[in-house]
Amino acid sequence: MNPTKEDIVGAYRETQDFICKAMEETDGEGTFREDLWERPGGGGGRTRIMEGGSILEKAGVNFSAVEGDLSPAMQQSLHVSAKHFFATGVSIVMHPNHPLVPIIHMNIRYFESDAGDYWFGGGIDLTPHYVDKDEAAYFHREVKKVCDRYDDEYYERFKREADDYFFIPHRDETRGIGGIFYDHLVDDATLSKLDLLNFSLDIGRMFPVVYSAMIGENRDKIYTDTEKRWQLLRRGRYVEFNLVYDRGTRFGLSSQGRTESILMSLPEDAKWVYDHHPVAGSPEARTIEMLRKGVDWVRIQKNIST
Amino acid sequence: MNPTKEDIVGAYRETQDFICKAMEETDGEGTFREDLWERPGGGGGRTRIMEGGSILEKAGVNFSAVEGDLSPAMQQSLHVSAKHFFATGVSIVMHPNHPLVPIIHMNIRYFESDAGDYWFGGGIDLTPHYVDKDEAAYFHREVKKVCDRYDDEYYERFKREADDYFFIPHRDETRGIGGIFYDHLVDDATLSKLDLLNFSLDIGRMFPVVYSAMIGENRDKIYTDTEKRWQLLRRGRYVEFNLVYDRGTRFGLSSQGRTESILMSLPEDAKWVYDHHPVAGSPEARTIEMLRKGVDWVRIQKNIST
Repeated sequence: MNPTKEDIVGAYRETQDFICKAMEETDGEGTFREDLWERPGGGGGRTRIMEGGSILEKAGVNFSAVEGDLSPAMQQSLHVSAKHFFATGVSIVMHPNHPLVPIIHMNIRYFESDAGDYWFGGGIDLTPHYVDKDEAAYFHREVKKVCDRYDDEYYERFKREADDYFFIPHRDETRGIGGIFYDHLVDDATLSKLDLLNFSLDIGRMFPVVYSAMIGENRDKIYTDTEKRWQLLRRGRYVEFNLVYDRGTRFGLSSQGRTESILMSLPEDAKWVYDHHPVAGSPEARTIEMLRKGVDWVRIQKNIST
Repeated sequence: MNPTKEDIVGAYRETQDFICKAMEETDGEGTFREDLWERPGGGGGRTRIMEGGSILEKAGVNFSAVEGDLSPAMQQSLHVSAKHFFATGVSIVMHPNHPLVPIIHMNIRYFESDAGDYWFGGGIDLTPHYVDKDEAAYFHREVKKVCDRYDDEYYERFKREADDYFFIPHRDETRGIGGIFYDHLVDDATLSKLDLLNFSLDIGRMFPVVYSAMIGENRDKIYTDTEKRWQLLRRGRYVEFNLVYDRGTRFGLSSQGRTESILMSLPEDAKWVYDHHPVAGSPEARTIEMLRKGVDWVRIQKNIST
């Protein structure tokens, strides 16, 4: 049976609960505080933020379910002619305090209009301050597993879209090692609307498992001042991507979204140094070299381990 | 006699020299290092950066003189039909390490096309981490003095334009206490092209005098951790304005300008805290209250001192 928007809202709300609970357990000290908010045009959200956790320095898990009239600008930007929309989703960014733990981002969302059309969108991607091939391969392999349960072509297709989307043209580098990014996903001959909902829920279920594993792998490693400083510089790039290019951020800010919920994606601290270049051959330089589109992260790992 | 573009280039280059020399003297320790760069499409620039000065933590003084073909997108954005353009200017942002010394920005620029049209643009504005009415009045009074030498209406007109331009809609606050902002200034019945050039040069001459005075007033004051932390939060807002709204930054990044010269405007460190609100009645809260359009800073001071 086709899930209704109420079903999807319920499932996404549960996804937020599940992820917050799991990440509180992983962190061990920090807890999420909640802000409920209403959107003047209709609907609202439930923003949850952890600051100053034992590992999660700043983590935001937003749930929202909003509706309202579509302005001509929004109609144009969404390529729809409908007058009224409904949208719900879960959006996550987590900045760890530890430079050897990556920044992670996940988003799942559902949109429908009163003209009867609907689609799912979302993705998950990883921004390590230091790229570790094994970690990157693990992440991509886990993402691919979820994709493969639904469609053999999803991973490759959505991985390519992530490479294209999470790219900083003025730095000529990707934001991180990518992941998957998809939009305008509708049911077809093989996948029903329920399947598409389940695909997004599976991404949500995978999220805390995979991120907790990466945290567990790295949280007890000693790090240096050089590594901490590099983390802050990489966060500067994250800020650049989100404020200059990220569609969700720019759409949110320009459409009078809730600023604090949108900008929870920004790190607690970031740094910019003029014309900074890491020393050739350093771990920092090797990271930059790997911030490229089209790297086959799944196979890189195979080459190492076999 | 009408100044040629070579005259303007020479005068702007001297303005850069004058300002760098004066600010090195004020700082007392830091020096500017220089990067010469060429623009693939024609022309180039001279970027000068000071980092880690005794008071100037990060200061950029860019000179550029570029030329090239106008793409249809540029023609549309500039409202010209010409095929070839020439542009020169000096652009400055200075971030002090001391939270009681304001951030300052100045820009003077000249544009001409092969269709024979030209204009001057520019401005200067102040972003104090803590708004001090006397300092704000001093700054606006000095800016007004320069304006008044050319046109009785300049200050009021360009002050209003600065209020409108240096505004962060998603925060509903101005970036700082404003100053002046002007664009598309051409000669008329009373002011010649030479007058307009001299107006911009006078802004450049005023810059180090006024900024050095404000530095001298505050640099020896003791500051607290609370004040330092507030400075970093205010710098976060500066980053938001520059990356989300500043036309020069966005145009530069999207037109493959030199990234490091464009983003020299970003501070060394910045901070974001979710839903941060200063305590009611605190100096931080009073600063936020004063970040409004339409404040008559010149008269505020008069009310205090008379």
